[in-house]
Amino acid sequence: MDRQKLKILLDKVRKGKIKIDKALEMLRDLPFEDIGIAKVDHHRALRRGFPEVIFCEGKEPKDTVAIAKSIIKAGHCLLATRVDSKTAAALKKFSKKIKYHRRARCATYRHKKVKPQGHVVVCCAGTSDIPVAEEAKITAEMLGAKVTALYDVGVAGIHRVLAHKKELKEARAIVVAAGMEGALASVVGGMVDVPVVAVPTSIGYGASFGGIAALLAMLNSCVPGVVVVNIDNGFGAGYAAAMINRK
Amino acid sequence: MDRQKLKILLDKVRKGKIKIDKALEMLRDLPFEDIGIAKVDHHRALRRGFPEVIFCEGKEPKDTVAIAKSIIKAGHCLLATRVDSKTAAALKKFSKKIKYHRRARCATYRHKKVKPQGHVVVCCAGTSDIPVAEEAKITAEMLGAKVTALYDVGVAGIHRVLAHKKELKEARAIVVAAGMEGALASVVGGMVDVPVVAVPTSIGYGASFGGIAALLAMLNSCVPGVVVVNIDNGFGAGYAAAMINRK
Amino acid sequence: MDRQKLKILLDKVRKGKIKIDKALEMLRDLPFEDIGIAKVDHHRALRRGFPEVIFCEGKEPKDTVAIAKSIIKAGHCLLATRVDSKTAAALKKFSKKIKYHRRARCATYRHKKVKPQGHVVVCCAGTSDIPVAEEAKITAEMLGAKVTALYDVGVAGIHRVLAHKKELKEARAIVVAAGMEGALASVVGGMVDVPVVAVPTSIGYGASFGGIAALLAMLNSCVPGVVVVNIDNGFGAGYAAAMINRK
Amino acid sequence: MDRQKLKILLDKVRKGKIKIDKALEMLRDLPFEDIGIAKVDHHRALRRGFPEVIFCEGKEPKDTVAIAKSIIKAGHCLLATRVDSKTAAALKKFSKKIKYHRRARCATYRHKKVKPQGHVVVCCAGTSDIPVAEEAKITAEMLGAKVTALYDVGVAGIHRVLAHKKELKEARAIVVAAGMEGALASVVGGMVDVPVVAVPTSIGYGASFGGIAALLAMLNSCVPGVVVVNIDNGFGAGYAAAMINRK
Amino acid sequence: MDRQKLKILLDKVRKGKIKIDKALEMLRDLPFEDIGIAKVDHHRALRRGFPEVIFCEGKEPKDTVAIAKSIIKAGHCLLATRVDSKTAAALKKFSKKIKYHRRARCATYRHKKVKPQGHVVVCCAGTSDIPVAEEAKITAEMLGAKVTALYDVGVAGIHRVLAHKKELKEARAIVVAAGMEGALASVVGGMVDVPVVAVPTSIGYGASFGGIAALLAMLNSCVPGVVVVNIDNGFGAGYAAAMINRK
Amino acid sequence: MDRQKLKILLDKVRKGKIKIDKALEMLRDLPFEDIGIAKVDHHRALRRGFPEVIFCEGKEPKDTVAIAKSIIKAGHCLLATRVDSKTAAALKKFSKKIKYHRRARCATYRHKKVKPQGHVVVCCAGTSDIPVAEEAKITAEMLGAKVTALYDVGVAGIHRVLAHKKELKEARAIVVAAGMEGALASVVGGMVDVPVVAVPTSIGYGASFGGIAALLAMLNSCVPGVVVVNIDNGFGAGYAAAMINRK
Amino acid sequence: MDRQKLKILLDKVRKGKIKIDKALEMLRDLPFEDIGIAKVDHHRALRRGFPEVIFCEGKEPKDTVAIAKSIIKAGHCLLATRVDSKTAAALKKFSKKIKYHRRARCATYRHKKVKPQGHVVVCCAGTSDIPVAEEAKITAEMLGAKVTALYDVGVAGIHRVLAHKKELKEARAIVVAAGMEGALASVVGGMVDVPVVAVPTSIGYGASFGGIAALLAMLNSCVPGVVVVNIDNGFGAGYAAAMINRK
Amino acid sequence: MDRQKLKILLDKVRKGKIKIDKALEMLRDLPFEDIGIAKVDHHRALRRGFPEVIFCEGKEPKDTVAIAKSIIKAGHCLLATRVDSKTAAALKKFSKKIKYHRRARCATYRHKKVKPQGHVVVCCAGTSDIPVAEEAKITAEMLGAKVTALYDVGVAGIHRVLAHKKELKEARAIVVAAGMEGALASVVGGMVDVPVVAVPTSIGYGASFGGIAALLAMLNSCVPGVVVVNIDNGFGAGYAAAMINRK
Repeated sequence: MDRQKLKILLDKVRKGKIKIDKALEMLRDLPFEDIGIAKVDHHRALRRGFPEVIFCEGKEPKDTVAIAKSIIKAGHCLLATRVDSKTAAALKKFSKKIKYHRRARCATYRHKKVKPQGHVVVCCAGTSDIPVAEEAKITAEMLGAKVTALYDVGVAGIHRVLAHKKELKEARAIVVAAGMEGALASVVGGMVDVPVVAVPTSIGYGASFGGIAALLAMLNSCVPGVVVVNIDNGFGAGYAAAMINRK
Repeated sequence: MDRQKLKILLDKVRKGKIKIDKALEMLRDLPFEDIGIAKVDHHRALRRGFPEVIFCEGKEPKDTVAIAKSIIKAGHCLLATRVDSKTAAALKKFSKKIKYHRRARCATYRHKKVKPQGHVVVCCAGTSDIPVAEEAKITAEMLGAKVTALYDVGVAGIHRVLAHKKELKEARAIVVAAGMEGALASVVGGMVDVPVVAVPTSIGYGASFGGIAALLAMLNSCVPGVVVVNIDNGFGAGYAAAMINRK
Repeated sequence: MDRQKLKILLDKVRKGKIKIDKALEMLRDLPFEDIGIAKVDHHRALRRGFPEVIFCEGKEPKDTVAIAKSIIKAGHCLLATRVDSKTAAALKKFSKKIKYHRRARCATYRHKKVKPQGHVVVCCAGTSDIPVAEEAKITAEMLGAKVTALYDVGVAGIHRVLAHKKELKEARAIVVAAGMEGALASVVGGMVDVPVVAVPTSIGYGASFGGIAALLAMLNSCVPGVVVVNIDNGFGAGYAAAMINRK
Repeated sequence: MDRQKLKILLDKVRKGKIKIDKALEMLRDLPFEDIGIAKVDHHRALRRGFPEVIFCEGKEPKDTVAIAKSIIKAGHCLLATRVDSKTAAALKKFSKKIKYHRRARCATYRHKKVKPQGHVVVCCAGTSDIPVAEEAKITAEMLGAKVTALYDVGVAGIHRVLAHKKELKEARAIVVAAGMEGALASVVGGMVDVPVVAVPTSIGYGASFGGIAALLAMLNSCVPGVVVVNIDNGFGAGYAAAMINRK
Repeated sequence: MDRQKLKILLDKVRKGKIKIDKALEMLRDLPFEDIGIAKVDHHRALRRGFPEVIFCEGKEPKDTVAIAKSIIKAGHCLLATRVDSKTAAALKKFSKKIKYHRRARCATYRHKKVKPQGHVVVCCAGTSDIPVAEEAKITAEMLGAKVTALYDVGVAGIHRVLAHKKELKEARAIVVAAGMEGALASVVGGMVDVPVVAVPTSIGYGASFGGIAALLAMLNSCVPGVVVVNIDNGFGAGYAAAMINRK
Repeated sequence: MDRQKLKILLDKVRKGKIKIDKALEMLRDLPFEDIGIAKVDHHRALRRGFPEVIFCEGKEPKDTVAIAKSIIKAGHCLLATRVDSKTAAALKKFSKKIKYHRRARCATYRHKKVKPQGHVVVCCAGTSDIPVAEEAKITAEMLGAKVTALYDVGVAGIHRVLAHKKELKEARAIVVAAGMEGALASVVGGMVDVPVVAVPTSIGYGASFGGIAALLAMLNSCVPGVVVVNIDNGFGAGYAAAMINRK
Repeated sequence: MDRQKLKILLDKVRKGKIKIDKALEMLRDLPFEDIGIAKVDHHRALRRGFPEVIFCEGKEPKDTVAIAKSIIKAGHCLLATRVDSKTAAALKKFSKKIKYHRRARCATYRHKKVKPQGHVVVCCAGTSDIPVAEEAKITAEMLGAKVTALYDVGVAGIHRVLAHKKELKEARAIVVAAGMEGALASVVGGMVDVPVVAVPTSIGYGASFGGIAALLAMLNSCVPGVVVVNIDNGFGAGYAAAMINRK
Repeated sequence: MDRQKLKILLDKVRKGKIKIDKALEMLRDLPFEDIGIAKVDHHRALRRGFPEVIFCEGKEPKDTVAIAKSIIKAGHCLLATRVDSKTAAALKKFSKKIKYHRRARCATYRHKKVKPQGHVVVCCAGTSDIPVAEEAKITAEMLGAKVTALYDVGVAGIHRVLAHKKELKEARAIVVAAGMEGALASVVGGMVDVPVVAVPTSIGYGASFGGIAALLAMLNSCVPGVVVVNIDNGFGAGYAAAMINRK
């Protein structure tokens, strides 16, 4: 119920067209309707200007297809994450126009082309971090950002990062995906003056503890402007970078 | 060594005014000078457009004063964090124009007023979280942002957050400082479409483990667009929010 | 051995129908028999007024059937938890009247209908939390409670919870199942004046650590009246809620 | 703004005594006022029927006194927790009628006597757990419960618990405070058919890790009906027990 | 109520000297009285043949003196652990015959000399581990064991342990106190064929985590026959060793 | 080189039958040969009076058979732990006299019957803990102990433990295997005056963390005389109990 | 771009053969080319004098073969780690001269024999640690070291280590691989005066936590000169030892 | 007992001047004496060529002085670590020639100058890491190494490290001390071909957990040749580097 509808309601009350008790009843839910009707709000709710997102982990392929169908029919573009090959096949069967990004485990659909805005750079430290980086890239692109990918630029050979100083300096927001010791976030952060969204990956062994080592390193970055999302959460990193980029 | 100086150097080489061996020597350090001269780069280096920052924890008051002096003399504005009362007194003694923000444990100095830009909202869940929130606020302000503070809006009484929907929706970036279960970040994140920089505080007892409970809650937020900085790192949160706000 | 049987025994002693030594022998175990005969007391013992419960994890289907048989024959109603499809089939084969709740992984049997008492609300944050919530719901129902389920009301869209204020306020006890950041428990707890039994779920990834993030968040809830059970322990949550509801 | 006031407002609208725009403005905050006016809602908000609670840790004595004053003047009874001796003295100076419970570190005030209802039992394992148990006891009493204390009944001598079977069986809710291995919660839980609110204490050394050992033991209790609150959170335990007791 | 008393009771029932209802009442508490009357059961209850023990941490000196008094008057010998200098002074003031062992932080009293039995060896790795080792030694001695101390025999110089092979082989039980990497327990365990009670100490820094490193090492000992007690729990180690020695 | 051989060597030196330099060479390795020749010393070395033990986890069936063969041929009795069904079949194929204990995952062989000595009691809390308890039982029996098993006596129904007070009091050493909250160790320890070897099991879910909850509970037992071995280490518990029993 | 090429470039500038602007462009990347051309720098970059290394975990067999091919063609020798049987077969198919070390999961290739230098000793505690030890051995050998292996010398039988004092004393660097309590590193370290590179293995169960127990023990070694690498990182240990050995 | 003494003993046996039984007795302890007489072996034993070291933490100043005295009198040079100001004063009082290094908390004494050998570089990331770095520096110097210190070269400004490439490349071993995210170790390691001894410092706050973040980062370094010592263990790092340097 928006301001306009409320005005009309109060007007009816004034004119005696509606009983006070009835109005009381109608007003009870006011604040929630002011926020918006309950929508398909599965794993993560997406607000204005952004497409709906389906988090597919733990969902049956047919359920994912059903939701994808309703989203596309409503005229929205589609982003599905954590899409395994089975679900990808089901989506493809539903519509050949749905694109499956295997490494990123994402599926996307667009009604029409959108001109990418701004500039987001997505870097990753090693080849094993690429799936997470790709999820970030696809997500940011679906949210309207122009994205440049810089992969395999880990700190073991610092020259590889330094070689891309130009691209990094042109970005509005940077995503850094890194596992193991996660040092790349600090090194990149120290070279630029835009926010760095660091996403630790679960890549590593032994005392990497499934990404905890990288997570802690990133949280403890000596460089201000480095912010962190959950381990392997490429979607969250791309989403935040796109939000920053959009302004 | 900037582009101009390099051009001059090459010109001298061409004209034979400088020996090749000598030029070789001079070029060796080029890339580092291209980045900028080694500066007072204490706890965290601040790049272009942002003032120098002194992290005072573990520094002698007299050292802090010396650095502050050099920063102010160089025409920069000053932000010092983790300033205890002793250091505050020493700074005040050096210059009465330095302002001490007791709750935020920050000291600031500005040569001239700067018109605040954009809009950053800093919220915190409980009164105990205020020092961290204030550090974020002062930091964002020193980096040029207009800041609105919304304190004591924890989720135990959800109406307190909901009452400020308007301010939250107007922000370009939001800082949420919360200890205990850290739920405020998700609740605020779900209400807006801008990045939320969540800063867990060490407030709590028992199984809060000095802020770990809040940190984990924030990293696991079901709301995309929530990014996280280190426990009690109000400076880092304010810095990131100001970076996002600036664009 | 209950009070009645003990009275008879003592009467026999008085009448000389039983030897003192023999009575001594029989009395030796008295206190334990006073509590109830040593019964099938597998995973968790259920006391007066509540049905027997079989925790099936790690049990052979045939063993579960045997125990179920003895329970039903004794005139008790049946609740079996953590029932996989194999065990479900075996139970169904034994008696078609046994009902299998697939999502809750529970099997139940009732000799006759019982009118549900009081009111327990079971909410969960996301669709992935539903199995745990359902286990709580079935358990509370088997223990005699009337249960209302409110699913998919996570805090990412706070309006979804707020919309159910009425149902929440009418409950005698509320179960909240949530993974990820577990914020729902605090938000619900802040809206009501009855105990909230919070059950963290292992839903999430990365730094959710199999439910630890939600567990810590719930333990650190800033809302008094929120109590916590083990990760994924829907049975325990439903059991406690039913106990509270029963009074 | 309660239902009555809202009715009057709508009546004024109907009668033209108030402009629609003005009413719109007044209605804007409706839902929050429906919950209750934004009050002194410090650490934990207390709802209807329960007294206000001040969490004193980290508060200046004079602030505590100010809040206590406003609570008492409003006709509410007072419960202040984590009251150190300084704050206790300040409260005593403000009003001699305020009672200080040194071991429980609580201060209380009642305008008139209230007849205790139901029955809550508070047990603790060792003498060192008594402060936490006492905090639970005072809290439950302030919330209207009749409370029986059973202290020093740890499982090292199991007969001590068994000797109190009668009191335990008569309770509507039981609080168990225990540090070290926290086994008392399971032992007590196995003897009764009412909810046991287990509160781990930070008592112990070495691998007790400030109460984590007891916390984990309680969360893993093999007895259904055992629910857990945060380490040393006697207030939370007493509060939950009183809620359960009240029904 | 022992067997004899029970026989008499039943006899009275048989002879009609006592009513059945009355007998029922008396039998209700039987099992608990069978275990023994509730005793001074402070921190840890000591059973037959062993002296009472007072755990002084967190106790007022005057309370400790009161308990010590009652123990000594009852004819028992005294062992008080975690005795700080204040409490030591208070005990000394009460009776000059009480002996204070400063390094072990123990106080002891014996009515008459007892001939030590068997042989317990207490070793420790470094000089910093001596307080814990001494607590074990005093405890084992008070429980009747003959004790040999081998201090400063850490594995950094393996020859120091090897030099004492003879003493080690003659023991009935061995206590090994070690901090840091706790390797001594395995080395000693591999040299003997009696149980080794390993007590990790909180000695170390950095990643020793207050004794966790040593605790884990000891739990993971590749030598069977090594059992472990809590960090810094010299009392528990000495107690267990004395129990093993006594047989 | 044993004492006898050394005497002969020295005798040869005295008689000039061997050169001093040569003797020097031979004496260099003396101490190690004095301990015994390096033997099949796989997972854990067993010393005098105890049979050889093969830890089979990670060993090929054929390797296990080869070692078993050499042990049996040497006239020793055999204990193999962590024997899976494949290895069991291979051992059976080698000798039908080898006995496989499926639940305990142990294989044993004895040349002749040995009369069991002393008395060890092995209890466990739930039916799921039985495999660990059985490993302890078989181990203690192979080391010569008479063993009584008390299974399914968890604290959820405390009467079940109390009913076995007599057996517990007659033991020289007691093994307690328990998962979940591990409270059984303290309850049993409080009832007896012999050492209790507590072995936490990995049974449980959620915050049991694969046995850590039980491990911590046991390390923090308020009962002196409770010592702990590694999670699921039934072999270690049975070994230690047998060592204690043997004296 | 090396020094020689730079000299030529500057010479061309001097002679006017190249425009200043063009030279500027070419110089922009100078520092990075000074470090070396961007190479196949997969998991870990290997510098001068050492062969290229392929970390195969997570790589498709055909990718590994392609990289191996390029390395061998370039005249380098080959070291591939974490090679599973599938990848081994693919490598073998590519060239029969590639040698597969099954236990070490390594594949190697040498164009010509190289005389091993210095002396590295690789010890391990148990037979289960051998794969990690072998990875260290192969790595050190490929980096030019002469390596002696001392396996199964765990501290449960300390004589086994002591027997090899001579070999240990002759080494320039020692690798110690051990799981469980990891005590071997300290024992060996205490016997020698060269660096000990300790590599914890994930061997163990229960509270070994996948190698954490050994890792912490090694980090807390009381012996100076013991340095540590990641859990199961035999490659890293062998690499570091070879670096130390080389000097 | 050294080789010479043993020869004399055997000679006496040959000549019949000593009885065989007596010789047997004397030989029993041979191997241990062969290793060296039990010496002042406080915190960590130092072997041949290296000075004695006193770890002063937890030692009384007078004890430290006594040990220092004995070391100096024996003609050794002195290194004392973790020397607080009190102990420093006591040492100074004993001998003015003892030098106190305040920041490194070390005290040293040399009988005569020694020419430094090789080259060790000690770097640290921030000014707060200097005490740990200085401890490493003093230690390495006392062990004979020439040491260059590169302080405040953290990765927030990567150019600072790059500027010192020359010094780094000339070293035989490098110590890197860093707190927070510990990234410096990887960055430095990637630039050189000598071992890097990484020492995490406890510098940082929040989720640095007293150095764990840096420790994990260093253990997970993607650069081979990086080895790690305990948190804040500057002594251990300097010691290992000096060992590597010495060869």
